[in-house]
Amino acid sequence: MSVAPLTKSRLEAFSDGVIAIIITIMVLELKTPEGFDLAALMSLTHIFLLYVLSFVYVGIYWNNHHHLMHAVGRITGGVLWANLHLLFWLSLVPFTTRWMGESHLATLPVAVYGVSLLMPAIAYYILVRTLIAANGRDSAIAHVIGKDVKGVVSALIYALGIGLTFLSVWAGIACYVIVALVWLVPDRRIEHS
Amino acid sequence: MSVAPLTKSRLEAFSDGVIAIIITIMVLELKTPEGFDLAALMSLTHIFLLYVLSFVYVGIYWNNHHHLMHAVGRITGGVLWANLHLLFWLSLVPFTTRWMGESHLATLPVAVYGVSLLMPAIAYYILVRTLIAANGRDSAIAHVIGKDVKGVVSALIYALGIGLTFLSVWAGIACYVIVALVWLVPDRRIEHS
Amino acid sequence: MSVAPLTKSRLEAFSDGVIAIIITIMVLELKTPEGFDLAALMSLTHIFLLYVLSFVYVGIYWNNHHHLMHAVGRITGGVLWANLHLLFWLSLVPFTTRWMGESHLATLPVAVYGVSLLMPAIAYYILVRTLIAANGRDSAIAHVIGKDVKGVVSALIYALGIGLTFLSVWAGIACYVIVALVWLVPDRRIEHS
Amino acid sequence: MSVAPLTKSRLEAFSDGVIAIIITIMVLELKTPEGFDLAALMSLTHIFLLYVLSFVYVGIYWNNHHHLMHAVGRITGGVLWANLHLLFWLSLVPFTTRWMGESHLATLPVAVYGVSLLMPAIAYYILVRTLIAANGRDSAIAHVIGKDVKGVVSALIYALGIGLTFLSVWAGIACYVIVALVWLVPDRRIEHS
Repeated sequence: MSVAPLTKSRLEAFSDGVIAIIITIMVLELKTPEGFDLAALMSLTHIFLLYVLSFVYVGIYWNNHHHLMHAVGRITGGVLWANLHLLFWLSLVPFTTRWMGESHLATLPVAVYGVSLLMPAIAYYILVRTLIAANGRDSAIAHVIGKDVKGVVSALIYALGIGLTFLSVWAGIACYVIVALVWLVPDRRIEHS
Repeated sequence: MSVAPLTKSRLEAFSDGVIAIIITIMVLELKTPEGFDLAALMSLTHIFLLYVLSFVYVGIYWNNHHHLMHAVGRITGGVLWANLHLLFWLSLVPFTTRWMGESHLATLPVAVYGVSLLMPAIAYYILVRTLIAANGRDSAIAHVIGKDVKGVVSALIYALGIGLTFLSVWAGIACYVIVALVWLVPDRRIEHS
Repeated sequence: MSVAPLTKSRLEAFSDGVIAIIITIMVLELKTPEGFDLAALMSLTHIFLLYVLSFVYVGIYWNNHHHLMHAVGRITGGVLWANLHLLFWLSLVPFTTRWMGESHLATLPVAVYGVSLLMPAIAYYILVRTLIAANGRDSAIAHVIGKDVKGVVSALIYALGIGLTFLSVWAGIACYVIVALVWLVPDRRIEHS
Repeated sequence: MSVAPLTKSRLEAFSDGVIAIIITIMVLELKTPEGFDLAALMSLTHIFLLYVLSFVYVGIYWNNHHHLMHAVGRITGGVLWANLHLLFWLSLVPFTTRWMGESHLATLPVAVYGVSLLMPAIAYYILVRTLIAANGRDSAIAHVIGKDVKGVVSALIYALGIGLTFLSVWAGIACYVIVALVWLVPDRRIEHS
């Protein structure tokens, strides 16, 4: 148990590294416009907004991951894998962002983007459960996370957004933006502990 | 409060990761010249100088971020977001550098480069204010930063440079270089505390 | 000896950085499909599965590296180089993954992928031996690693897989997957110490 | 003075991040061969050897940086910039490696590669001098580094190699390889302190 802080710090360091790369890679994929005038710059508008959205989205995960790990005591082999599972799905966000941008918001790419937002939400939920299992139902983490209503509701709104995309792309995107706004507020349940 | 150093160290680690990637990504975007003779190498000169400028620029932010965090005690959820906001604008520097280089210093790309320098300056100012708000007006950070005249003046020179670009590209670039030189001197107000 | 933790933590931090980049670079190389319909998405299936396999594979090395370093006391110059040697071979995995994907599982690229899995296994073995040599035959690391049967068997299965590829590509891939599954279970010899 | 370890650890973390990216970026630039047979694979041989050389080269700098910082007590603003200066020149190694590879070892690119090896050597020398100036002529770092004959001799051999390249490309490359071999042995002056 005395070695736990070291293990935790390395888990955090690795997660920080992967998330830092994911969040920075996305700008690498911003292609410069063909021309050098205002029309060329304006042609980037929707790509830029998608970049902002994905940046915020990955930033939210970093913030929540930060708050979550802050409350954690014990790390197990299962936690390492649950964390890698979360990082795996996050690593796909630059790819789905790029495809959605290239498609100029075609139906399937927008739905797939939604899936790439839903899967980290599920993976985050699994990570929280794994952490509670590792630390016990009476631990600080179990106490402050509680039932994680916010996480479950987010996943449901993502699923709704994916479905709505097939009716209207903008309805889907509206759902994604709503969840981002909900999470922009840091998880005060943990911060106040 | 006793956990603050951990939170702060993770904020620093994540920022270090993102800034390290931003500063290194730019060289990835240096395209090798078409030929292998001196003329081919010389054709890279202005691109190389832009790379040096942006490297110095991002390096300045790392140095100042380093000095700033050194004086900080308390981190809040608002600080995390103010910091991500700064990283967001910094992450656009490789993109604007590339576009400016591709345009061979056309007016709009040089002005947009100036905007990509101005926005981190504003974001840095917001971060400083958020840190002072979190640590109190009597804290070490409030004391050593003071009115941050240097930051405000820098932002004004950037704004001037953006405007001047539309008269003369070189006047705009001169403004950008002047601010870089001003910041190359580390913020002794913090270092000496 | 009292400075060892610092040296070790920097070795871990550097390894975390390199492995984080390797694992994240692979998704950068996922090319978006030509179209935006289901057929286009489906055309990515085998590339996606290869990405999952390589992600898991690099993740396994991170996990095992994490467990291994946890049990280590003393770091020498030889350990630094043995560790860089491991990172070198891991850094080739994104390249061999990409070539295998581009070839639609042609014989030679699948065999070369196997080589890029075998070499880190050998490098990991060398790292373990170097660590035991640095820490002494009576050290914790020597005790918990023991004869490292799992590592030797893995290398043998990889070598078998490389050979089988020339008979059947799928037989080779089956071998690679088997080793991945074997290592997915964290090395309990170290975890339980 | 009591805060020095923190400053130093952040300097190390940032340097680790940049060097980890530089060393890993190079493999991103390994282009997969056109075909999927042995001839295609063999066509990569000289590119692969250049990659190995540059990997070893950047690895040497990480190792020496690691040993150097280990002996350091005090960090100043000047040290931060001397360190960024070293990282700047190292960041160009992937670029010069790529150009040299594309040129199939043409004279000028091989000479420029030599320059990209010489400049970090000079920058490393400046970093050592800056560290000694910051820590005093009686400090541990001044004592263990001494006159840094190895660094000076390396720079001279690089300069020789750059010149020889214009007579024979292979003579230049031989000089670069010799310096790499010299540095492969970790700096025992520091390690033994």
